[in-house]
Amino acid sequence: MVEKAEIRRSSCALPIGVFDSGIGGLTVAAALRGLLPGEQIYYIGDTARVPYGGKSAVTIERYSFEISRMLLEEGAKLIVVACNTASALAVSRLRETLDVPVIGVIEPGAAAAVAATKTQRVGVMGTRATVQSRAYERAIHALRPEVSVEAQACPLLVPLIEEGWLDDGVTAQVIARYLDPMLEKGIDTLVLGCTHYPLLYKALEKHVGPFVRLVDSARNCALEVQSVLEARGLSCADGQNGGLQVALTDPSTSFLKVAEQSLGLDVGEVRLRSVG
Amino acid sequence: MVEKAEIRRSSCALPIGVFDSGIGGLTVAAALRGLLPGEQIYYIGDTARVPYGGKSAVTIERYSFEISRMLLEEGAKLIVVACNTASALAVSRLRETLDVPVIGVIEPGAAAAVAATKTQRVGVMGTRATVQSRAYERAIHALRPEVSVEAQACPLLVPLIEEGWLDDGVTAQVIARYLDPMLEKGIDTLVLGCTHYPLLYKALEKHVGPFVRLVDSARNCALEVQSVLEARGLSCADGQNGGLQVALTDPSTSFLKVAEQSLGLDVGEVRLRSVG
Repeated sequence: MVEKAEIRRSSCALPIGVFDSGIGGLTVAAALRGLLPGEQIYYIGDTARVPYGGKSAVTIERYSFEISRMLLEEGAKLIVVACNTASALAVSRLRETLDVPVIGVIEPGAAAAVAATKTQRVGVMGTRATVQSRAYERAIHALRPEVSVEAQACPLLVPLIEEGWLDDGVTAQVIARYLDPMLEKGIDTLVLGCTHYPLLYKALEKHVGPFVRLVDSARNCALEVQSVLEARGLSCADGQNGGLQVALTDPSTSFLKVAEQSLGLDVGEVRLRSVG
Repeated sequence: MVEKAEIRRSSCALPIGVFDSGIGGLTVAAALRGLLPGEQIYYIGDTARVPYGGKSAVTIERYSFEISRMLLEEGAKLIVVACNTASALAVSRLRETLDVPVIGVIEPGAAAAVAATKTQRVGVMGTRATVQSRAYERAIHALRPEVSVEAQACPLLVPLIEEGWLDDGVTAQVIARYLDPMLEKGIDTLVLGCTHYPLLYKALEKHVGPFVRLVDSARNCALEVQSVLEARGLSCADGQNGGLQVALTDPSTSFLKVAEQSLGLDVGEVRLRSVG
């Protein structure tokens, strides 16, 4: 019994490591805080090299390994890749290489989409790199091969969100231009395949109407983290010391305030970490 | 005479080094090709870490030194910082430290603006980092203190250009939103303070109308390069081997095609260079 208690204490001392190319992954951190309030979360946003979404697979993989190693140095007991682009392009290699469980956002998002669709027609919106990777198609087809998947790269949405134009006519027009071709194909479920997009939830919901379900990975990803931690005896359900530590690779924080307000997260003091 | 001919030959063997955070600086490379067709140009676009415009001064300076060192390894006889953000935040430190002349785009743009304005009211559009640096204000006031300068950060324009929405209703609305407050203040000259913006020249011209002069740094920067090379005996006016070599730090090239077509540049084979 003493031993078991010690294991639990030591797991509680170890954080869940979370990373994203920038600030958007805080939507996943917020879901983790809500579901697992006893856990410590160490979040790194690679703001010195953000965005990943237009870059090549080799670069995205290299950055993902570098940031994951920084999380392991912080003692991370599990790594959450809270970035669709990095999840699409780096999770399988991270899993092969690292000694801790690695959870991305693609598989939880795909599972949520498959559970939600009735017409078996699912739309996916994401960055150029995520859409080109076809990672959502693969993950959805692995669960249910007969679902047809329409994917659309939406590279202007992240800059619009970071400009703070969340409830805005221009943003609404950009959303319409990106989504209408998918809507015309009869999708009834739309995956928000980028961790920034939940900040546009209201505008997206307004455009797609009541018959299309919006699915984001954050809550499903948090449930997956909970399940893996419990299965491995790494969870810290009774912990009293849950919290969120945020580190960024560049100190420019204009968008951090937008995210804090939208998510109701208390980010506290932000650390600066150096990358190449 | 032999010695002088040898100096000229050796200067001709050395390239002009040009860098930008990405592809936008090819507008400056195109102006250099037009004005100095005998010169070799070695261009590095830091596409692995693009954009610089939302990042902090310390990060932008670090990246600028790293890329400049790569150009010096290629034998660059002069370095052109073909990026407004890096020019605003790193040129003075680069000049203090490097042994070759360093030419940015801010001072040539400021000189063009001062030459163009009749009302002594100048507008400047740029990235967040460029506008926050107040580098254009300083450069314009150093030339003519009585000019009033209005500056506006336009962070959505680069993503719109990279999406290829150059002649587009959404882009026109974004332009209007950014520029109208400056136009209402009576500017008669507008500095395109980002090397991407010349690709929006037609849309900008249409919005500001015939009484506002658009000024970009590319041609003035090329003239400054010509003048410095001549003053130092480094020019290669008679060279037969002029050309452009492009290297990128990330191989993702979706926007490279947009730039090649818009600028009529023959970029040829692109090299890949590695950064941290």
